Amino acid sequence: MDDAQFRRLHRRELVGDRINGASQLARAALDSLGEFAGSCSATDLEGLRAALLGFGEELQYARPSMAPIHNLVERWMDRVGALEPADAAELRHEAAAIAQGLSEHSVNAVSAAAHQAAQLIGPGATIITQSLSSTVLEALRGLAPSGIEVITPESRPGLEGRNLARYLDRARVRVRFITDAQVGHFAGDASVALVGADTLLVDGSLVNKAGSYLLALAARDRGVPFHVCCESFKQVPFGAATFEPEALDPGDLDAPNGDYITPCNVYFDITPPHLISAWIDENGVRYARQGRPADT
Amino acid sequence: MDDAQFRRLHRRELVGDRINGASQLARAALDSLGEFAGSCSATDLEGLRAALLGFGEELQYARPSMAPIHNLVERWMDRVGALEPADAAELRHEAAAIAQGLSEHSVNAVSAAAHQAAQLIGPGATIITQSLSSTVLEALRGLAPSGIEVITPESRPGLEGRNLARYLDRARVRVRFITDAQVGHFAGDASVALVGADTLLVDGSLVNKAGSYLLALAARDRGVPFHVCCESFKQVPFGAATFEPEALDPGDLDAPNGDYITPCNVYFDITPPHLISAWIDENGVRYARQGRPADT
Repeated sequence: MDDAQFRRLHRRELVGDRINGASQLARAALDSLGEFAGSCSATDLEGLRAALLGFGEELQYARPSMAPIHNLVERWMDRVGALEPADAAELRHEAAAIAQGLSEHSVNAVSAAAHQAAQLIGPGATIITQSLSSTVLEALRGLAPSGIEVITPESRPGLEGRNLARYLDRARVRVRFITDAQVGHFAGDASVALVGADTLLVDGSLVNKAGSYLLALAARDRGVPFHVCCESFKQVPFGAATFEPEALDPGDLDAPNGDYITPCNVYFDITPPHLISAWIDENGVRYARQGRPADT
Repeated sequence: MDDAQFRRLHRRELVGDRINGASQLARAALDSLGEFAGSCSATDLEGLRAALLGFGEELQYARPSMAPIHNLVERWMDRVGALEPADAAELRHEAAAIAQGLSEHSVNAVSAAAHQAAQLIGPGATIITQSLSSTVLEALRGLAPSGIEVITPESRPGLEGRNLARYLDRARVRVRFITDAQVGHFAGDASVALVGADTLLVDGSLVNKAGSYLLALAARDRGVPFHVCCESFKQVPFGAATFEPEALDPGDLDAPNGDYITPCNVYFDITPPHLISAWIDENGVRYARQGRPADT
């Protein structure tokens, strides 16, 4: 496989992935960069560096609703751009090591955020969520021995909720499995709503799998706190005004055919900060101010 | 087929129907009663009347979340109970005629309610709905020539929204077809939300297909009016405190298997009156009082 093929293939895998969340895909992007540092055909130092940074730019914007891909790849590019290696071989080695280090940093941040969430929620809770967040899953696994129950919507069209239910079943966590449309009815049975994030906007708005906004509305109407849990790499420096959630293949909806029918698959939605009770990351918990939009 | 088989079969069809809404099923129940008036094996007058009223009682509670079945069957039973026929043959004839008359009355009431809704909404609107209501469909067909657009969630697990999209396509109405989880994202694109009802509780609460409550929450958050349109036979004389929405077969969810996984299929949800902008029936429109729960 030549360089162009390698880049196309890895980018396409990142764009097409419907299984993994933003943190895992960010690490997959770092893996691709690390691998490319080893395999890239460029032999001179600056030619190699240009190729690596070029591939970084391609991956950075592959999934625009998933901030950690952008953020971790950008951090990698910044560091690779600032390296002063003696030769191409040293650049290859260093670029791969930076990717590996950022990936480990991300794993640790997710773990730490999950630990903070588990501490906040405490034993024996009934937790309602949406989609499959690796951070939320880790928090739930941490709470499993305390006898929690999790209300899990199926998360059409990707059905991430089915995978969450399977993982929780293996962890011996009781699961009530529902349709996305039943989230309103069941929100009142939960003691807390907990979701991950694909991206956090600068005003505290949450970008996450479509349905998260409805869960936040139902939680608010039922008096149930709605917490967001993710590592700080999910943060971006712009707000909802300039953010357009990513649309994926409308063919995934299996819509009826018709000249007048347009299927829409906007995969993410935006939950405004006034519906969020607390933001949890690897550094701790930030509560919303009571009764009005959170101070940002 | 003997009387018991007839009654079992017709009751089972009513209980198992996932295609038709409450008004159509109420008329199907009346059809069954009319047919049974003709076929029932009882020969003496009071034996026949007892059999007819007994079958009425069975059908009346077959779908507890669908008020018109209860209400129309009860009205039929009241009238059949009060008849003073000369003989069994006259009772058969009268009981069938009453069923037929109530069924026509229901059709007319649905049409009139749909007309009121179409008048209220007006031409060129973008309308978001949930599930497939025959009343809403009739209103939308009435508005079709004016160039409306309808945002149609699929309505898992029964997928009533797919049928609505097909009907609207045939009426040349533009449809945006979405998942139930996207209702939050798309509610802001609508000029109005319009749903039917399976039942209206005495305080104005709406019992309708699961997902209606989430649509009402999203409409309120986006500043979009949320109207309920149904004929007055949907009204019941009790409130949300004593109402438990009907649960259907959890097998319809196609949930993953697991010792700790319990699929739940609560088919209806309750939308509280403070989220409803207007109630529309065959007699006209009743607006909610602005800014606070509707006067009931």
